[in-house]
Amino acid sequence: MKLIQTPVKGMQDFLPEDMALRQHVLGVIRETYARYGFTEIETPVMEHIENLTGKNGGENEKLIFKVEKRGRELEKSLQKVRKEEMYPDAAGTELADSALRYDLTVPLCRYYSGHKNELPSPFKALQIGNVFRADRPQKGRFRQFTQCDIDIIGDASVMAEIELIAATSDALHRIFAEVGVSGFTVHIGDRRILRAMAKSAEFAEEEYDEVFIILDKMDKIGLDGVKEELIQGGFAPEKVEKYVGFFRALEGEQLQDPAAFISQTCADCIEEGAQQDITTILSAVRGMISDDITLEFDPTLVRGMSYYTGTIFEISIDHYSFSIAGGGRYDKMVGRFCGQDAPACGFSIGFERIVTILRDLGWKENSSMPRKAYLIDLKSASGRMTEVFSAAAKERAQGFAVVVQPLKKNAKFQVEALEKSGYTEIRKVYADTQL
Amino acid sequence: MKLIQTPVKGMQDFLPEDMALRQHVLGVIRETYARYGFTEIETPVMEHIENLTGKNGGENEKLIFKVEKRGRELEKSLQKVRKEEMYPDAAGTELADSALRYDLTVPLCRYYSGHKNELPSPFKALQIGNVFRADRPQKGRFRQFTQCDIDIIGDASVMAEIELIAATSDALHRIFAEVGVSGFTVHIGDRRILRAMAKSAEFAEEEYDEVFIILDKMDKIGLDGVKEELIQGGFAPEKVEKYVGFFRALEGEQLQDPAAFISQTCADCIEEGAQQDITTILSAVRGMISDDITLEFDPTLVRGMSYYTGTIFEISIDHYSFSIAGGGRYDKMVGRFCGQDAPACGFSIGFERIVTILRDLGWKENSSMPRKAYLIDLKSASGRMTEVFSAAAKERAQGFAVVVQPLKKNAKFQVEALEKSGYTEIRKVYADTQL
Repeated sequence: MKLIQTPVKGMQDFLPEDMALRQHVLGVIRETYARYGFTEIETPVMEHIENLTGKNGGENEKLIFKVEKRGRELEKSLQKVRKEEMYPDAAGTELADSALRYDLTVPLCRYYSGHKNELPSPFKALQIGNVFRADRPQKGRFRQFTQCDIDIIGDASVMAEIELIAATSDALHRIFAEVGVSGFTVHIGDRRILRAMAKSAEFAEEEYDEVFIILDKMDKIGLDGVKEELIQGGFAPEKVEKYVGFFRALEGEQLQDPAAFISQTCADCIEEGAQQDITTILSAVRGMISDDITLEFDPTLVRGMSYYTGTIFEISIDHYSFSIAGGGRYDKMVGRFCGQDAPACGFSIGFERIVTILRDLGWKENSSMPRKAYLIDLKSASGRMTEVFSAAAKERAQGFAVVVQPLKKNAKFQVEALEKSGYTEIRKVYADTQL
Repeated sequence: MKLIQTPVKGMQDFLPEDMALRQHVLGVIRETYARYGFTEIETPVMEHIENLTGKNGGENEKLIFKVEKRGRELEKSLQKVRKEEMYPDAAGTELADSALRYDLTVPLCRYYSGHKNELPSPFKALQIGNVFRADRPQKGRFRQFTQCDIDIIGDASVMAEIELIAATSDALHRIFAEVGVSGFTVHIGDRRILRAMAKSAEFAEEEYDEVFIILDKMDKIGLDGVKEELIQGGFAPEKVEKYVGFFRALEGEQLQDPAAFISQTCADCIEEGAQQDITTILSAVRGMISDDITLEFDPTLVRGMSYYTGTIFEISIDHYSFSIAGGGRYDKMVGRFCGQDAPACGFSIGFERIVTILRDLGWKENSSMPRKAYLIDLKSASGRMTEVFSAAAKERAQGFAVVVQPLKKNAKFQVEALEKSGYTEIRKVYADTQL
């Protein structure tokens, strides 16, 4: 019986050249973040189903892959499902005891809650791992994909934001410098400013999330589109008009100065300290990152996740319509796990997007390891294996990459394939070949 | 509502010091295998349930974590389960469309079948990844654990075995050299010799697997124990007596010479070439590996998996009762996926065991990155952030690891914690501190 050769729907097999690129990028990320004092941790890919359905994940919770209970537990749940005729969603949750994580933030909060006494404070974590979402597969969107997150837990000051933004800008700058790309923009906004503007326009607090979801579409539908959707959404036209007016000044040219922007829009409603925070972040980060990176205050920035409480940020790359990193402050989430709040802030790199861009730009492995191959003719020289392998062992100890293979009938094709893989010195070994 | 803080049963959270060790060992493994021309690949952690229940995984198939179908597919299956009153095992499989892989060998065979036209021949693959088994958790056995496998597909000659054994011995030798351990034994056996001995003792072919499973317990229950279990298993006493006699000569001292052993036990029944193969492997590997590694022919070696067809091998470490690497030739497995056999041979490192041993032996990170910390007093020096972060940026660009943190009230404790993490230069920054 033949088995299924393709990977599971929406998932990827990586060929050696894909992996060389992925490992290279991960190497730069690890090395850069180590300079900023981030230490790597790891959590299991499976999480308790209760933790993943606790409303921390927003829309992503609808996309979780659930892992079935086993044995007697499965039988008990099956009987319950049979008796109560549950609909698929409820039955699916009843029959599962765990699920695959859809992000690295929920596992990090669980991890921190369980280990905080063993961890330094503030805790600067790097997590690199696979996450899973049963999304409709499409170009560049996969059901298993790698995330690279840095987070700082236990620092309520803007020093956390400064470190995260500088470190991520630095990593991306290094990664893309190799392919000659240096045009990035770091966008910095703040949920507190968003909330102050919504308040100033007299939206009710329970309306904020919906207003922000519509505002988030600004870059796709423009300010007029946002206005229209807000009206269609049933929000009072006078509120919508006032709200949209705040952003009208931004069209054409971005308003660079947070102090000026806040004083024109929502000075009465803004939380104390928010303006100073964003000013400090912009100034300190500017002093740390490469001059060719644009850094800008962006009061229209929303970021999807509702768990953000303060500063939010995103990095975009010139000539591409999507962001390649995003994050923000989420001071209320750790508390849901341990019952005691801890300030937290994180930045996540869109790893799959980055490797896709690098591959499209023709990234090539630049291995410093010289490569040699021995092709042994098994008819005439099979007795020479010990000798050839010993020679290979010596060269490997000197740092060469060496392969020893049987010489094929179609030697020309074999040699060409090796040359294509970077083997520069290829020797055929017959009975009388001098090594 | 508090959420669950511990990881899912049987799974592990890794602290920064655990990860430093794991990443270090993976680095040595990757670097060593690259010298042998292995290229890294990756497959998804989820596999088609049909591929994982195809009898390639032996006992491990009973331990798979199944991933539920979703939406309409789940509803259809639920109706079927309700109608047919399936028992949990059947219902569990009906309700799932995929599962978490229990090893890296089945995914490799699927991968090779699907991509063989894009891959070199022979194909030398390195896979590092997590696998999942719903085993009863116990000390050192986890439900998610990392495997490191190298495999060569497309080389029917012993050159594959030689490369695999030499590369794995080399990697382990380097890993353990750092903690002063060099006592390994490489055990080499052959399924063809096992089969020849069973045939010579006149067991029927369909009895072989059961006989081998009992023989595999030799190191735990001794030869007398094996004899007793075979008798209890209902095998004819005269066959058992003859079979056990083959191994009697081995007690006390191992029989080092495969030619002598085969001639005394099963010369009439042995497949052509098997004896020459093992002799060549022993000779070539001896010429490649460090002198302090013991290399021995071990005709009692069985290895659990029934998919092995020829040479089998294992590496044990002195003073520990378990093997730390194992593998063998499995020439019939790729064929189950693509309908056409391809010779294949693999060696898997017991990664979790290795890191456990290294941790027990007191492995310490030996980072060459000098570490500095700035602790900013937020009361007096919050206006100096830009200045301090700029200084840190310069030092990071020079290769230092630098952290910038708020100075805490309990500065003594904060400084001690940083010193413990390897920060040697720690500066408190007040209003008037000269940088």
